[in-house]
Amino acid sequence: MARTKEFDPETALRAALELFWERGYEATSMADLVEHMGVARASIYATFGGKHELYLKALDRYGESVDPHLLTELSQPGPVLPAVRALVERFAREATGEGGRRGCFVVNTAVELAPHDPLMARRVQASWDHLETALTSALIRAQAQGELGEERDPRALGRFLLVLMQGLRVVGKAEAGPQRLRDAAAQALALLD
Amino acid sequence: MARTKEFDPETALRAALELFWERGYEATSMADLVEHMGVARASIYATFGGKHELYLKALDRYGESVDPHLLTELSQPGPVLPAVRALVERFAREATGEGGRRGCFVVNTAVELAPHDPLMARRVQASWDHLETALTSALIRAQAQGELGEERDPRALGRFLLVLMQGLRVVGKAEAGPQRLRDAAAQALALLD
Repeated sequence: MARTKEFDPETALRAALELFWERGYEATSMADLVEHMGVARASIYATFGGKHELYLKALDRYGESVDPHLLTELSQPGPVLPAVRALVERFAREATGEGGRRGCFVVNTAVELAPHDPLMARRVQASWDHLETALTSALIRAQAQGELGEERDPRALGRFLLVLMQGLRVVGKAEAGPQRLRDAAAQALALLD
Repeated sequence: MARTKEFDPETALRAALELFWERGYEATSMADLVEHMGVARASIYATFGGKHELYLKALDRYGESVDPHLLTELSQPGPVLPAVRALVERFAREATGEGGRRGCFVVNTAVELAPHDPLMARRVQASWDHLETALTSALIRAQAQGELGEERDPRALGRFLLVLMQGLRVVGKAEAGPQRLRDAAAQALALLD
């Protein structure tokens, strides 16, 4: 029984996140988790609950690690639009190649689980609400600073960028070259001119 | 043995498509398929091959049923941009509510299978290439007819709309209300003004 405490929950959760992110929920068995986390099945249940609860915790962990970085990028003093542009371009860049195949853990969850799992759907919605708010807030500031025309609608533009960014991520899942996503991002950003 | 011929392959394939589309690949077992298709396991293997081949055939069937409709919409004589607008708005509308939760079978495949299954990735890419070509072709015609400024890049705009449309579909998977997608589509279409 002493072995049940011989692991770092944070490291184990990170390992579970990696596996769920790479393979999805259904394709990841408890046996896979035991092996990849290096933690006994009974300890996983005792510490995190079953597979469903473990997935939810991994999703929360993912959000915590991604969101502050993004908010920091969008909340710097000075001109705002360059930060918004850099963020969208980074999404387009990261959505190609190796990282693109793994994609965004929230998008993966939205597609695989949200339609029939209200708890997961709520997590996904919260993540998108958060991103939309961060973008809208930045665009309101851009407007107040004269970077964006007064006739523009920051909330609608924030929604547009949110949807476009999820599109970049999902197309990146099967994308061969980067040009399609680069072109898409460049066209989208022309809306901020 | 006579029972192995007592089914309509087209109806059975459609039933398999419904199930894969609703649940995904991993969450659909051969037992589920036997039950939902109403066809014995041996007959499924004999007619369609295993689960992987059956999924590929369902994906092809999906593409065949969706694509001609879309091409027809975009290829009517007369003004082009109204048809492009109508298509994007239809995507936004269909991505909310019940249909949105099921989403697009190609997007579902892109997220669940394309990253580690080259055969699936190629199918997804072919589907997106097809949509990009249809959009670009329409936009070239719009430009030739004076509906779109000469300085615009129809290929890049086609790529942009392709990515945006996949974004609408993926956000629709977990979306509660239609306003976010409507706003996103309206902003995107402002790029065609």
